[in-house]
Amino acid sequence: MNKEEMLKKYNDWKFRCSAYEMALSIIGIDKLTVAPPDGSAYRDERTAYLAGELFSIRTDPEIAEILKVLKNDETIDPDIRKEAELNFKSVSDILCIPKEEYVAFRHLSDQAYDAWYEAKTKSDYSIFEPYLKKIIEARKKMYGYRDSALPLYDRMLDDYEPGMTAEKYDEFFGKLKERLVPLIRKVTAAEQVDESFAFRSYPTGLQKAWTEKQLLPYLGFTKNWGYQNETEHPFTSWTCQNDCRTTTKYLENNVMSSIFSTIHETGHAWYEHNISPKYDGSILSSGVSSGMHESQSRFCENYLGRSLPFWEANYESLQKQFPEQLGDVTVEQFVNACNASEPSFVRTEADELTYPLHILIRYEIEKGLFSGEISVEGLDQTWNEMYKKFLGVDVPNAAKGILQDVHWSSGDFGYFPTYALGSAFGAQFYRQMRKEMDVDEALRSGNYLACISWLKEHIHQYGCRYNADEIMRMATGEPFDPEYYIEYLEEKYTKLYHLD
Amino acid sequence: MNKEEMLKKYNDWKFRCSAYEMALSIIGIDKLTVAPPDGSAYRDERTAYLAGELFSIRTDPEIAEILKVLKNDETIDPDIRKEAELNFKSVSDILCIPKEEYVAFRHLSDQAYDAWYEAKTKSDYSIFEPYLKKIIEARKKMYGYRDSALPLYDRMLDDYEPGMTAEKYDEFFGKLKERLVPLIRKVTAAEQVDESFAFRSYPTGLQKAWTEKQLLPYLGFTKNWGYQNETEHPFTSWTCQNDCRTTTKYLENNVMSSIFSTIHETGHAWYEHNISPKYDGSILSSGVSSGMHESQSRFCENYLGRSLPFWEANYESLQKQFPEQLGDVTVEQFVNACNASEPSFVRTEADELTYPLHILIRYEIEKGLFSGEISVEGLDQTWNEMYKKFLGVDVPNAAKGILQDVHWSSGDFGYFPTYALGSAFGAQFYRQMRKEMDVDEALRSGNYLACISWLKEHIHQYGCRYNADEIMRMATGEPFDPEYYIEYLEEKYTKLYHLD
Repeated sequence: MNKEEMLKKYNDWKFRCSAYEMALSIIGIDKLTVAPPDGSAYRDERTAYLAGELFSIRTDPEIAEILKVLKNDETIDPDIRKEAELNFKSVSDILCIPKEEYVAFRHLSDQAYDAWYEAKTKSDYSIFEPYLKKIIEARKKMYGYRDSALPLYDRMLDDYEPGMTAEKYDEFFGKLKERLVPLIRKVTAAEQVDESFAFRSYPTGLQKAWTEKQLLPYLGFTKNWGYQNETEHPFTSWTCQNDCRTTTKYLENNVMSSIFSTIHETGHAWYEHNISPKYDGSILSSGVSSGMHESQSRFCENYLGRSLPFWEANYESLQKQFPEQLGDVTVEQFVNACNASEPSFVRTEADELTYPLHILIRYEIEKGLFSGEISVEGLDQTWNEMYKKFLGVDVPNAAKGILQDVHWSSGDFGYFPTYALGSAFGAQFYRQMRKEMDVDEALRSGNYLACISWLKEHIHQYGCRYNADEIMRMATGEPFDPEYYIEYLEEKYTKLYHLD
Repeated sequence: MNKEEMLKKYNDWKFRCSAYEMALSIIGIDKLTVAPPDGSAYRDERTAYLAGELFSIRTDPEIAEILKVLKNDETIDPDIRKEAELNFKSVSDILCIPKEEYVAFRHLSDQAYDAWYEAKTKSDYSIFEPYLKKIIEARKKMYGYRDSALPLYDRMLDDYEPGMTAEKYDEFFGKLKERLVPLIRKVTAAEQVDESFAFRSYPTGLQKAWTEKQLLPYLGFTKNWGYQNETEHPFTSWTCQNDCRTTTKYLENNVMSSIFSTIHETGHAWYEHNISPKYDGSILSSGVSSGMHESQSRFCENYLGRSLPFWEANYESLQKQFPEQLGDVTVEQFVNACNASEPSFVRTEADELTYPLHILIRYEIEKGLFSGEISVEGLDQTWNEMYKKFLGVDVPNAAKGILQDVHWSSGDFGYFPTYALGSAFGAQFYRQMRKEMDVDEALRSGNYLACISWLKEHIHQYGCRYNADEIMRMATGEPFDPEYYIEYLEEKYTKLYHLD
């Protein structure tokens, strides 16, 4: 086969993959937002078949051969070479797994999800325990097939954050532990910030109306390329750069919940939307890593969204929407409440300061599970002990403890650590952005898009063209350094809680 | 190949087809409801590819051979035989068309849709005219490939209403013309029914809230198997019997529009939902013809939804939701307004009495276009003349005239007549239902589902297992007779307009 034929086959293959990926993405969004539940069995069976079709297309051995040639061909367009390299890795990682085993794992994870759901509903870890055990065994076996020099858990970590290893995460989390645990103790002992007004009654219809007329326009999230729906667990999904969907959840007794989930999810959406259109439909058209994706959503949510200038532009309108609930609250009081910190036992409700410790706990447990130092039996107790140790809280039950997150039921080990990493990436970008532009003035004057443009120029546009480390160096002139994150939290919380 | 192998291949094929059909259905619903428009080009290109995959699977020549054997095999399950017969027809109808031509037609109809949309927006028929010409030529060619003794237009009519021909429709419409045109003249000359209050200001948020808390529960349309969204043009779509989606449109200055579109669309949804589950995923799991489908939606909308007993169960609640707008209106006045008749030029806004004449006009035009008696050039004028002749109205412009309907842009000729046929089917079912149960009491007491159960038992459950004629005979004991429809309209409007 000559090069032209190879490229033609490769492009056909890319297009076919992207068609099935698009279909599966839309079917997935539909399922999580509006699809009638009684139709699930019918739909799921057919969705699995289409996923199998995609598997077969992706693992075509002829394509694997072509990818091997293209990724090493110095004479072709470097974009294509990069695509081929990433596709080759992704294809190799599944091609080594026997198809029956791959399909069986899909089925097991469906069952494990159901067991987790039942266990969480009944707050009974013992229902989930046997499935968790099977999932871990299956994962060990699947990752074992890979031709890789890395230890098993490192292979998983690398899947979500290429280049990261347990050794590097140990160093990262070691620093967080050392500096944040004492800071959290001081904050807990200090006089608390008043946030009681945030839990008054805010009719959800009014919250939604405000989000649509004020918040989403301010965030620049338009119906031309985005759509916001409502779900129990907010998420972002996309089919291409001009089709990014988010969801949020309105709680009557918590005005902040939907606001910050909206800012967070639209942060993910902006990343996907801003990737260079020339990559659309290719493997490059996607955020480069889980950590980098989370860095963008948390950047919007925390570094921008919880700042005073952000609310100087938006608070008056919110106050007008809720005159009875917020009439007696100043913008400064509101922003302080947005940043109040209190150790708790549910990750998704955690504040900016305690959040990374929730992740640390999950990371320590995952590492222990794969090294054999921690056992699945009694894991609920191990969980509770770690929450007591790092956050000083008593977990009331398994539903609000070990069963709170869905991730492990689908075998997503190695994903959690990227949440903390993303927050830390964000601090370094934030520092650089502030050097290069007047962030506060942009937010205050309603020019949120100026911040998004900075992110687009330095991060978003590249998609997967460069890896996370390269992007960090190009954007900030130096490698990732968690010190900026720790300093940011120390400075912010020392000031907010008058700890000097 | 022995019979067992054949059946296995056939079942695999059925399942594969149903998986692609499900995906295309969900992608289609998504596109028409929430998908961001800037992503259309990307999605449409990939959707077309998946549709092509389905085409290739459906037209597998080996399957055509198997279907030919199965449909004539007296020893197998009659359900499978019926499936094979219908599948064989459907496969043969596309297998005879060269694939390039089939794909080219898809592309042409996309372009024709865009031209129609632009023409309608600018109210300029000349933009659409050349595309309409091409679409008609393409249709003639495509239908010409069929191995059929029927004239071209009859082949189209048969696609939507198997067994119907221009000769039969001529007789049907001839009767309508003869009896309804004079009736409409009398109604127009009589003292008009007051419906002004229906056009007061009804905030759409309140309309939606009422639909969700009162109307949909009354209609038995639940989120377990259905979902209602909002679109510019209401429609119903489904992926399986437990997944039926409808849409509606709320107009601030018309309280009736969304109510009757909701009752209409949920009528379609009930039909699909009530088909026997044993047919799920097969060609039998679908309404038997366009006319029969429309008979069910219009049955719910007109025969049930515009009746006094229906509103005796629902009006108090509507009045409570809109005390200022409806406080001075009695339930009788409201129901009279629901049935007011006035000749107009827009089909979708037409009342029950004038509606069939809108269809008659389209039928006459389609017939003339394919016989060559009517030309595409100047068709806008022909249209206007017919509206003047049959409905006595002056069409103000092309947007509200010839460009009002989307159907022709996608080459759907032969479909319109089923709308009138469906209304007429409905009258015959209604007469029979009233003989067998106390319809008024059921509606009045909130037992709408008793009527739906009758429809399920006599019509819905069969899907495509029996043809429309067989269903009509089984349900009412006699063949279809349009006399019942005409009598129903004469009686109803004579009374409402005091024409005696």
